[in-house]
Amino acid sequence: MKKTELKWWGWGNPEETYNLEDRPNAWSYLEQKLGLDGRKCSVINLDEIELPASHLPQPYLNQLINLCGQENIEIDKVSRLTHSLGLSYGDLIRRRQGKIHNPVDIVVYPENEIQIQEIFKLAHESQLAIIPYGGGTTVTGSLEMRTLPPYQGIVSLDLKRMNSVQIDDISLTATAEAGILGPALEAEVNRHGFTLGHFPQSFEYSTLGGWLATRSAGQNSTKYGKIEHMLISLRVVTPSGILETKTVPASAAGPDLNQIFSGSEGTLGIITKATLKLHLLPESVGSRGVLFKDFHSGILAIKEIMQSGITPSVLRLSDETETEAIFMLRSRSRNNLKNMAERAIFWLLDKLGHSFMNGALLLLIFEGTPGQVNLERKISMKICRKYGGVSLGSSPGQSWLKERFKQPYLRDTLLDNAIMVDTLETATTWERLERLYIAAKGSLNQAIEQFGVKPLTLTHISHSYSEGASLYFTFMSKQKENLEIEQWSAVKKAGIDSFLENGGTLSHHHGVGRDHSLWLEKEIGQLGKSIVINLKSQLDPHNILNPSNLI
Amino acid sequence: MKKTELKWWGWGNPEETYNLEDRPNAWSYLEQKLGLDGRKCSVINLDEIELPASHLPQPYLNQLINLCGQENIEIDKVSRLTHSLGLSYGDLIRRRQGKIHNPVDIVVYPENEIQIQEIFKLAHESQLAIIPYGGGTTVTGSLEMRTLPPYQGIVSLDLKRMNSVQIDDISLTATAEAGILGPALEAEVNRHGFTLGHFPQSFEYSTLGGWLATRSAGQNSTKYGKIEHMLISLRVVTPSGILETKTVPASAAGPDLNQIFSGSEGTLGIITKATLKLHLLPESVGSRGVLFKDFHSGILAIKEIMQSGITPSVLRLSDETETEAIFMLRSRSRNNLKNMAERAIFWLLDKLGHSFMNGALLLLIFEGTPGQVNLERKISMKICRKYGGVSLGSSPGQSWLKERFKQPYLRDTLLDNAIMVDTLETATTWERLERLYIAAKGSLNQAIEQFGVKPLTLTHISHSYSEGASLYFTFMSKQKENLEIEQWSAVKKAGIDSFLENGGTLSHHHGVGRDHSLWLEKEIGQLGKSIVINLKSQLDPHNILNPSNLI
Repeated sequence: MKKTELKWWGWGNPEETYNLEDRPNAWSYLEQKLGLDGRKCSVINLDEIELPASHLPQPYLNQLINLCGQENIEIDKVSRLTHSLGLSYGDLIRRRQGKIHNPVDIVVYPENEIQIQEIFKLAHESQLAIIPYGGGTTVTGSLEMRTLPPYQGIVSLDLKRMNSVQIDDISLTATAEAGILGPALEAEVNRHGFTLGHFPQSFEYSTLGGWLATRSAGQNSTKYGKIEHMLISLRVVTPSGILETKTVPASAAGPDLNQIFSGSEGTLGIITKATLKLHLLPESVGSRGVLFKDFHSGILAIKEIMQSGITPSVLRLSDETETEAIFMLRSRSRNNLKNMAERAIFWLLDKLGHSFMNGALLLLIFEGTPGQVNLERKISMKICRKYGGVSLGSSPGQSWLKERFKQPYLRDTLLDNAIMVDTLETATTWERLERLYIAAKGSLNQAIEQFGVKPLTLTHISHSYSEGASLYFTFMSKQKENLEIEQWSAVKKAGIDSFLENGGTLSHHHGVGRDHSLWLEKEIGQLGKSIVINLKSQLDPHNILNPSNLI
Repeated sequence: MKKTELKWWGWGNPEETYNLEDRPNAWSYLEQKLGLDGRKCSVINLDEIELPASHLPQPYLNQLINLCGQENIEIDKVSRLTHSLGLSYGDLIRRRQGKIHNPVDIVVYPENEIQIQEIFKLAHESQLAIIPYGGGTTVTGSLEMRTLPPYQGIVSLDLKRMNSVQIDDISLTATAEAGILGPALEAEVNRHGFTLGHFPQSFEYSTLGGWLATRSAGQNSTKYGKIEHMLISLRVVTPSGILETKTVPASAAGPDLNQIFSGSEGTLGIITKATLKLHLLPESVGSRGVLFKDFHSGILAIKEIMQSGITPSVLRLSDETETEAIFMLRSRSRNNLKNMAERAIFWLLDKLGHSFMNGALLLLIFEGTPGQVNLERKISMKICRKYGGVSLGSSPGQSWLKERFKQPYLRDTLLDNAIMVDTLETATTWERLERLYIAAKGSLNQAIEQFGVKPLTLTHISHSYSEGASLYFTFMSKQKENLEIEQWSAVKKAGIDSFLENGGTLSHHHGVGRDHSLWLEKEIGQLGKSIVINLKSQLDPHNILNPSNLI
C-alpha cells in the first residue's frame, strides 16, 4: 500500500508501455507532422536527484510518528518526490530532470478524521503547509508549492488508508472514504450489481477525494454526469471544524454546501467521505463508430442527439486533425482477413466521399436495458445519417473501450522522443462552440510556431450536454531544448486566454490548481473570487491547507 | 402590472373558486373525518384593517420617487398588505384577521440593476430593511419581518418590471430577468418550440427569481429537475457588488457559485437574471393512473421505475388516506354513460381486491418522442404490475393535469369553513422513506389531537429520484378558534421535528424562511450555518437584505 510502485518519472505501471512500433504509420506520420530530428529526452537516474534535506523539526516528526505510527510516515526520496508534483507535461519534464523546487518534507497517511485534525493542529503550531494528496494525477500544479516561505516545511497528507465503502442497496448509493482508488470503488459497487459510471482517464490511479476536490468528469459523464452531479453528501474536515451535509436526494434548505467543497481543491478542508448516486449495471452496452465529412457536420449531429432528450454514455467526436491521427496511429491487425476487410471499407468510404484523412470520427456508446440501447441507437443513427455520417459499425467503440486508460502511457513514449505533448480543455455553449474551437486551435498553433517548430493540435468533443459541450485539445510539437517549461507555459497561456476570450470556461474537468489560478478572477469575477477567499479565511484561518492553490 | 388584482386575503384570482358543491361526497366526507360543526371563518372587511402609518422618512421617499418614478412606487394599503406576508395557513389567517404586525412601508419596482444598487445605498443610509419580492407565494414566512428594530422602516423591492427574456435557439437556453412570472416565461419559451418544464403549484403567480432563491421544484421535476438543476448561470446584485457566473454547461473552475445563491432566499443579494436549460416541447405526452393495494407496494414500484434509468415527468403516488380523499372529493361527471362506466370500474376493482377507499393511487406522466413515451410507459407498467398495480388508463392523469393549479383555491374554501389546512414537505432516501412517512404522519396527527380535534393527514410522494423521494403532507383539522396560529405552529413543529429525527431534509422545495429558520442548524450543522452567516456578512455587511430570514 505505502511504497509506491508506480513510475516516479511518468504515468502508471512501469511494466506498461504504449508501443508505437506495432503501429506501422505512426512514426512516419509524427515525423512528417512535427519535423522530428531523432533527438531523445532522457530520464535522470534516480540516484542523481538530490532533494533538499527535510525541513521538518524533529519534535514535529516525533509527534507525527506518535500520532500515526512510524509505518505510516514516509521521508524517503521516491515518496517525497512523487508526492511533490503532478503529471502535467511540465511536471513530467521536471521529474525527468530531477528538478523539484519545493519538495514535501514528509508524507503522512492518517487513518481517520481525528488524526487529520491533529495533523492540522501540529502543522499550525509548527508553521507547516499541508498538501492533501489523493492519487497524484493532477495536471494543474495543485500539489506543488511555488515558494516555501512563510512556511517552515511541507506535509503531504495522503488519504489512501481511508478507503472503506458502504453500499445502500435500497437507495442505490455508495458511501466511501475519500482515499479509495477508482478501480477499488467501482469493483465494490459492481459486486452489488451497480456502477458509479465515473471513468476519468486517470481512473486507475485517481481517488474519490481527488475527483470531488477538482470536479472531475468521467468518459461516460454524458450519461452519468460529472462527479459533482453524482454527489449526494459529503464530510469535510476543516481547520475550523467538521461539516457533514445531509444524505437526501435534494433540498431547499439554504445554499448547497456540497457545491462549495466540490471544486475547493484541498484549500478549504479535506473531504474525508462522500455519498454518491449509483446506477444498475447496464444490461446492455452498444456502440457505433460514425465517420462525418467534417467536424462541423459531426457537431450538428451530437448537438441534435443531446437535444432530442436521449443520453448516450459516450459521444466522442474528433476533429479532422485528430481523426487523421487516430487513423495513422492505429495498430496493424495480426489477422490478414481483417486487414483486407479494412482496406475494402476504406475503398468504399472513399467512393462515398468520406476519408479518415479529412473526416471527423464520432464514437457513440449506449448503456441501459436492451430496449433503451436500441431506441437510443436508432434515434442517434438517424440523426447522424441526416448530417451525412456513415456508420463504421461497433468495432471503433470496442477498440476505444479496450484502450481508453492506455493513452497516458503514449505521452511517456512521445516524451522519450523529445515531443512536447499536453492537453487543455474547456466547455461552452453550442452557440459559441465552433468559434471557440477555431480561435483556440489557431492560438495554440500560433504559440507553438513562435518557438520555430511545427504544431499539431488534435481536438475532440469529450462531454456533451443539451446546452453545449466540452472541447479537449491535445497539443504537440518538437520539444524546445532547454526551454521546455517556457515553451509549454507559453502554449498553455495562449490556449487558456483564447478559451476565456471566446466564452469558454477555464476548465471543464481538470481544475484550476496553481498553473491556472491567475485566470480565476477572469472566470468568476472579482466578487466571485473574493467569495472563495472569504470562505478560505473562515475555514482555514491560518492558511495551512494547500496555500496559494486555486486562489 | 402594478395594482395587484389578486385576492388580498387568499390565493390568486378573485373570480376563481374551488367549488365543493359539484363534488357529491365532499362535505359528508370532510364532516365525518374532521367532525365539523358548521362554524365559518370570515374575512375582515378591507376598510377595517388599519396598517401602522408608513415609517419612511420623507427625504427617503423623495429619493425613491426620483430614482424610479412616482408610478413605480406604492404606499397604498392593499399593496403594502399583500407585500407584507405570504400564503401559508398562518399568513392566510392573519390576512383574514387583518393582523399584519410589521407591514412594509413602501413597495418599489426598480427596472434595472443600477436602481437596485441605489435602493441598497439609500436603505443603508436611512437604516431600512429591504425585502425582495417575486410573486409573494412563499409559505415559509420569508416576506415578513418579525420585529422592526433596529430598522427605521421596511422596503418591499418588487422585481416584476424586470421581466425580459432572450432565447438561444442553438444552445436551447433562456436568459430571463428574475421578475418574470411562470406563465410569461413558459409562453415565450413555447413560442420557440421549447419548454422549461418547471411547473410548481404556484406556477401562475410565482417568478423565476423566487424559484431560484428558494430552490423550487416543479410538478414535472422528476424529469426536468428542480430549478437549481436547470440553472446554468445567474447575475446577482449584492450590497458588496455584482456577480455574474459563466454561461457554460459545466466547469471545474472552483466552487459552484450558482449554488450559493440558489437557496439564499434574498439574504445574500438579489438575483436579477438567470440562464436556464430548455428542452424541446415534447412531441408526445402519455399518462397512466395505477391503483395499488397499498402505499408500500406503490413505493416499491416507483423506486424500481426510477432505478431502471427512465424518467417519467410525473410520478405522484398518494397514500391510502390521500387516495380515499381524492376519491371522495371527485366531481360528478355530467355524462351518465361516464358515471355508469365509472361504477363498472369500481365493481371490477373491488373484485380484484382493489379499492380507492384503502388503496394507493399513482399518476404517471411520460414526455418525449412517441418512441420514448412508449418505451417508458411499457417499462413502468410492467414494474407496476409486478407490485400488484392495476391500470386505470389515462383519464386520472388527464384530470390531474387539468386541475393541477386549482388546488390552492381549495384551501380558501376549506378556510371559509373553519378548517385548518396546510402542507409540509421533505425528502429522504428510499431506505428511510417509509419509516419517516410513518413517524411524521403519526407526529402530525398526534399534535393535532392534542388540540382536541380530529386529524386528517394526506400524503403523497411528489418528486422521485433514483436514490429517494420527496414526501408531501397535507394536514387538516377543525380550526381551534382564537388559537389558530398556536394550533398551526404546534402541528408544523411536530412534523418538522419528525422529519429531522428521521433523516429527512428540512425542506425539499418550499425553503426555510423565517418559519423554519430555527431548524437550519440542525439541518446543516453549526459549521454549515456559520458558512452561510459568513457569506451574509461579506455580501451584505450592513444586513439590509431580508434580515433574520433563513439564518
